[in-house]
Amino acid sequence: MKKGLLESLQSYSESDFYPFHMPGHKRKLEKEPFAKICRYDITEIDGFDNLHKPESILREAQERAAKLYDSEETYYLVNGSTSGILSAVSTVASRAHTLIIARNCHRAVYHAAFLNHMKLHYVYPEMISEYDIAGPVTGDSLERSIKDILNMEKAENQKARELIAGVVITSPTYDGITSNVKEIADLVHAYGIPLIVDQAHGAHFGMHPAYPENAVKEGADIVIHSVHKTLPAPTQTALLHRNGTLTDKEILKKYLQIYQSSSPSYVLMAGMDEAVRIAVEEGYQRLDILLELRDSFLKEMEKCRHIRICQLTEPGKLIISVKGSSMTGQMLYDILRDRYHLQMEMASGSYVTAILSMMDSKEGMHRLTDALVQIDKEIVKREGQNRESEFAFRPDIALPMWDAYMASFKEIELSKADGETAAEFINLYPPGIPILVPGEVLDGEIIEAIQFYLESGYTVQGIFDHRIRVVQSSQLYQMEES
Amino acid sequence: MKKGLLESLQSYSESDFYPFHMPGHKRKLEKEPFAKICRYDITEIDGFDNLHKPESILREAQERAAKLYDSEETYYLVNGSTSGILSAVSTVASRAHTLIIARNCHRAVYHAAFLNHMKLHYVYPEMISEYDIAGPVTGDSLERSIKDILNMEKAENQKARELIAGVVITSPTYDGITSNVKEIADLVHAYGIPLIVDQAHGAHFGMHPAYPENAVKEGADIVIHSVHKTLPAPTQTALLHRNGTLTDKEILKKYLQIYQSSSPSYVLMAGMDEAVRIAVEEGYQRLDILLELRDSFLKEMEKCRHIRICQLTEPGKLIISVKGSSMTGQMLYDILRDRYHLQMEMASGSYVTAILSMMDSKEGMHRLTDALVQIDKEIVKREGQNRESEFAFRPDIALPMWDAYMASFKEIELSKADGETAAEFINLYPPGIPILVPGEVLDGEIIEAIQFYLESGYTVQGIFDHRIRVVQSSQLYQMEES
Repeated sequence: MKKGLLESLQSYSESDFYPFHMPGHKRKLEKEPFAKICRYDITEIDGFDNLHKPESILREAQERAAKLYDSEETYYLVNGSTSGILSAVSTVASRAHTLIIARNCHRAVYHAAFLNHMKLHYVYPEMISEYDIAGPVTGDSLERSIKDILNMEKAENQKARELIAGVVITSPTYDGITSNVKEIADLVHAYGIPLIVDQAHGAHFGMHPAYPENAVKEGADIVIHSVHKTLPAPTQTALLHRNGTLTDKEILKKYLQIYQSSSPSYVLMAGMDEAVRIAVEEGYQRLDILLELRDSFLKEMEKCRHIRICQLTEPGKLIISVKGSSMTGQMLYDILRDRYHLQMEMASGSYVTAILSMMDSKEGMHRLTDALVQIDKEIVKREGQNRESEFAFRPDIALPMWDAYMASFKEIELSKADGETAAEFINLYPPGIPILVPGEVLDGEIIEAIQFYLESGYTVQGIFDHRIRVVQSSQLYQMEES
Repeated sequence: MKKGLLESLQSYSESDFYPFHMPGHKRKLEKEPFAKICRYDITEIDGFDNLHKPESILREAQERAAKLYDSEETYYLVNGSTSGILSAVSTVASRAHTLIIARNCHRAVYHAAFLNHMKLHYVYPEMISEYDIAGPVTGDSLERSIKDILNMEKAENQKARELIAGVVITSPTYDGITSNVKEIADLVHAYGIPLIVDQAHGAHFGMHPAYPENAVKEGADIVIHSVHKTLPAPTQTALLHRNGTLTDKEILKKYLQIYQSSSPSYVLMAGMDEAVRIAVEEGYQRLDILLELRDSFLKEMEKCRHIRICQLTEPGKLIISVKGSSMTGQMLYDILRDRYHLQMEMASGSYVTAILSMMDSKEGMHRLTDALVQIDKEIVKREGQNRESEFAFRPDIALPMWDAYMASFKEIELSKADGETAAEFINLYPPGIPILVPGEVLDGEIIEAIQFYLESGYTVQGIFDHRIRVVQSSQLYQMEES
């Protein structure tokens, strides 16, 4: 490997160069971690390239990332997968007006469609009721969507490329469920439509045979990887890969410049390069060790009477289910945190999610095993059904998303919102997937579910003190004159 | 001061909590600075709030920043001033279609107008020919712009608020020139129009009487501060302040969520809080010391025969001019870097720019003084005129920016581009202010200037191997079918 970004920053920080440039800390902060960070935190000075026109050290760093995933082109993202999704969707928006997305896409996909005034067409993943999680998106359901759009427009198959800007799916999901990207890519490519895969949670894919292949190799046109999620990179870092001929490189580059800071952090970028180095040099071996730890964990879990680990996920996720018992996901999450100091990623209705990475330790896995075995003994069986997850809803749509999000709104009590049209995104956070999208109609079932989430202590974005914003009139929002 | 973000992260990092959550490094990186950073780098776990719905520790941190600048509301930006500018302009875009901007605004302002399909109306700052830099924007020129738009629409004064979405100016400029924000705010407010001030380079304003007041106090509706530029904060961090009743808080919050990562870095955010703490506790005193160092430097510079320091800037910038001599800005920049290991912020045609901050040291200022005194002795006077800076151009506009930026283009030799319409932004980097905006027409003077910059070794974005992209036809760009 050539000299990485980190070594170059190190050399500069050890030189006697005096900085009459940004950043304003001038490498003189005293408190950690900033005392350390500031020595590596520079701006686009000579020898350090420019992310928005990379020609030397940053181009090489991006090429190392491209090689890891076998991509024709790879771009660093310092504004997270969010900026990659905005850029990818904006790029295909220049092709056509309609975007097909899986309904369980991250909120950023909806935001991107909003910015581009696009019409959304949803594909609903089937629910996996055993664990209350969304399943994969199938090629069949996608093809039905494409046919539906062609039918609505009374158009032939070959018109699909002019009507449909692209398809966006999330694989793996936040819960670790992967779709068959290869099959889906082949299908949509047959219609001349590009496929964008939000693989934010799968940056570790393709590095070990026990894990799924990465979506670049499976034929997706644009793939977004959050390297901070499952690789050893700092928060807010991600990669975007572009391949093939169905998306336009020049338009993509315009949007990557638009949606990202013109002062990208070299510390974040060096963090990506270092994560790529670790993945290349140690990835396989580290994942191998992790898989062994995981196997021992799963074996121990077989002894549990109530706690079950979902076997349908990729190995990087643990869906720890308490469905059918007296315990909720939130209760399990709280016990693990308060009593055992094990901080989980998320609590949902009937399960908690743990994220495993190649940096996990034996100690951590053993602590989790012991805690769960102990907690399992305290759980009793519950009669009746658990509540379903949010993805079971398929709300009616009264207004296009853009119109509803920018419409004049009123704030009313959630309990009285039956039949009203949402003016805000309502989502559980994490993971930030919308329960309701602006323009969708509230009904009794959805209201009851939101109330359940609130009462159970979940963070529900878009609800303010049990009140919800609903569309007042489809007039564009007008401020009151001052 | 309450317990800051940094102390909270510190406590968590010293606890025995095991992370089954993002980020994937699991606090186990070995190489510095990441070994240090990763201990503070967390995600939105319990007790650490959510930037996109701040209720506790991040809300308090933002309130501390608001207090420092005397703002009603202040928002952390982890995607730089770029994300603040996109959010501010998008917010006022919901008011009307036309945006008045100073022609020397940062590229991000143009990007924001592009995303919102806005029509731009330019105010040109007068040139300060003694130093080849752009001067302030005046209230008079702004009022002429407003009147022009009203005339074009045959409308009365009171219609201005329905026709003009807002006014954007940069103060201070990259060169340290401030406009009279108070006068301009009063003027545009009289028409019911909001004022956005890109004060990226003035985050240190208002902290010492020798510096200009900060634009929040001067009455701007939205102000953006890059805290990493002149305060001791990490690169890519910035603040957005909103005040008054002319801009909509709810729409602004929507766009801040859209344009920023849903996984914001706690290290960046703690870095902002720490910079605010330093500014509050030590800002006045540190600036006082810096001003003394600056005064001694200026006194020494009086001995120079060729090198002159521009006295028109705010004290945080040094415009070190060699205009009228045998030396160019780039030559001075190279000598300072190569021979003296003094890294300047930027070289322009006839000057170099140094950024001073409250973290600068006596040693640095002395090294700069000695170097310049020595270099001055080597310079000889040059006959004839120096080249003018880019802001002297006022290109004709052939196409609206959005149309030209998304139009079908061809790449031709720069020398043959006379009369063609630019399809790309052409800008010197730094600072990233466009020489040419998509839709503007190339003429002999502009081509000659670009060639001069290229030959002198400047980074000219938008020119590829002496070739330039020009509009082929005003048809929207169509990819060739694969």
